[in-house]
Amino acid sequence: MGGDFAPAHEVAGAIEALRMRKKEFEVILVGKEPQIREQLKRHDTTGLPCSVVNADEVITMDDPPTAALRQKKNSSLAVGMQLQKDGKAEAFASVGNTGAVLSASTLILGRISGVSRPTIAAFFPSERGVCLLVDAGTNVDCRAQHLYEFAVMGSMYAKKVFKHENPTVGLLNVGEEKKKGTEAVQEAHSLLERSNLNFIGNIEGRDILKGTAEVIVCDGFVGNVVLKFGESVPSFLKSKLKQYAAGNIIRTLLIGAARGSLRASLREMDYEEFGGIPVLGVNGVSMIGHGNSSPKAIRNMILKAVEIAESGLNRYIEEAMAKSLKPAGTEAAKTLGQ
Amino acid sequence: MGGDFAPAHEVAGAIEALRMRKKEFEVILVGKEPQIREQLKRHDTTGLPCSVVNADEVITMDDPPTAALRQKKNSSLAVGMQLQKDGKAEAFASVGNTGAVLSASTLILGRISGVSRPTIAAFFPSERGVCLLVDAGTNVDCRAQHLYEFAVMGSMYAKKVFKHENPTVGLLNVGEEKKKGTEAVQEAHSLLERSNLNFIGNIEGRDILKGTAEVIVCDGFVGNVVLKFGESVPSFLKSKLKQYAAGNIIRTLLIGAARGSLRASLREMDYEEFGGIPVLGVNGVSMIGHGNSSPKAIRNMILKAVEIAESGLNRYIEEAMAKSLKPAGTEAAKTLGQ
Repeated sequence: MGGDFAPAHEVAGAIEALRMRKKEFEVILVGKEPQIREQLKRHDTTGLPCSVVNADEVITMDDPPTAALRQKKNSSLAVGMQLQKDGKAEAFASVGNTGAVLSASTLILGRISGVSRPTIAAFFPSERGVCLLVDAGTNVDCRAQHLYEFAVMGSMYAKKVFKHENPTVGLLNVGEEKKKGTEAVQEAHSLLERSNLNFIGNIEGRDILKGTAEVIVCDGFVGNVVLKFGESVPSFLKSKLKQYAAGNIIRTLLIGAARGSLRASLREMDYEEFGGIPVLGVNGVSMIGHGNSSPKAIRNMILKAVEIAESGLNRYIEEAMAKSLKPAGTEAAKTLGQ
Repeated sequence: MGGDFAPAHEVAGAIEALRMRKKEFEVILVGKEPQIREQLKRHDTTGLPCSVVNADEVITMDDPPTAALRQKKNSSLAVGMQLQKDGKAEAFASVGNTGAVLSASTLILGRISGVSRPTIAAFFPSERGVCLLVDAGTNVDCRAQHLYEFAVMGSMYAKKVFKHENPTVGLLNVGEEKKKGTEAVQEAHSLLERSNLNFIGNIEGRDILKGTAEVIVCDGFVGNVVLKFGESVPSFLKSKLKQYAAGNIIRTLLIGAARGSLRASLREMDYEEFGGIPVLGVNGVSMIGHGNSSPKAIRNMILKAVEIAESGLNRYIEEAMAKSLKPAGTEAAKTLGQ
């Protein structure tokens, strides 16, 4: 109920997801039942495994996350997350208040053993395919240990959900040398060298779109800025092409002719394709989408949530977190995967 | 002498700059004289005000900046910077070791009174024209006071070199609300509210290319990552368009036809257009360019250095740094310009 177009886009997205399903799953729509039923009437839901659970309250975008969760115990967010806690659902997805979804994920589902801070991971396009950037905005102030944990969780995600054999992990920094960057980042470099991950060292801003690493590790401040910057590139290009073509018929025609190609090439930069990003490190599956998500984005987020739930990701994260680091000084001995 | 193609590109760039000059200026080429003379022979230098000062040593890209400066007292960098200190030159430009240029700028020229940390500012394209991003990579760990000083220096640059009447200043953060971000950023927000700058509040990653602020303030870690990310966008697009067109003649033709428009629209993202970025906060003019700069990039960097030297920028920075902040609590009263 917390999205900008709730519950219309949520209902439409859920129905699209169910229609496209290749494996069986069921969608439980949580929120103000009369409004949801109203929306459901607009679709042909014959044969679709879809039910409604009522929740009378709504956490808005402006509500302070933790306080809202405490006060609005009957919000669609709290009720929906609790369904998972109670074993009645295996994943949760929302395009509501990001902070509140994060808090609810941590408070209601609890952290995976060994994880000190849950995180959100974003998908990033690159010349070599989709990468994972973690943390994408949750933890703005990070110590080395947090960055290390992000690397472990991101790595497991790339392995179990993306199905990458031995995902490469890069530490986002201002230079390639070990001694570059803040103290926390330098220390994280050492921890990663001692890990069993496929750590390829520091990477720089220019390596993200190149696809140098399949998992990009950074604090949530940098991650959030880069993510939002990346999302703004398509509209910047559109605006520049428009300025360039303005009043010139030939240019307008040429650009118009190539529009389809450009759009197709930029598709990966469109968050709608991913629909939402996962919360990692909690005992369950939790997905967060943009407040103004389209039904298509919501559909994709739901399909992604199903994929994550089926992958058994969290068990692998727990196992990986339990592995101990190699003693300091042995970092030269590179290992292959874990 | 420290650039990847030194001194060929440096000499060619300097000669191009002199040929394009609208106002009088002179170029002093500093480095190994025989090599420079050799390069000069390849150009027609008749009537161009260009001289050579010999310097036998070279600081390489791999030299540790401060140690190199101490040991190589006769490097082109040290000798060139000293010319400015001695009043024999009014600006310095180099595409050598960035760290060494920065150290030399601070150690030889000294800091402007009131500035605790010199910084480098990068130019960023936006839908509304060029913006200034400061710090672009010098100071990876910043306190609030440093961020405030970057804002003052950037603002003066936008005013005196870009000639913007009353430049808008945005603080790069993970959200619009005052209480977002790290402690340092939150505190910087308060300082900026109490300043005489045209502070418009927090901006996010997506606002950079939109041109929401003319001066974008952030620490050097974030600045460096975003800057390098931005520089990689054109080649990412090229690669994606190529992948999309591969083996399809129609697509290849359409994309080929629009190539000129695309290139023109992305021109602003090309660092060659700016050629180099200024060191701010030192008693002089110092410009840094990419090690692999083309003659065109070097030409543009030299022309920019002349423009900065003529603007009297440093005097304005000193004046602005001396202005006191309004007492805390008065931030609601917005002022117009300074």
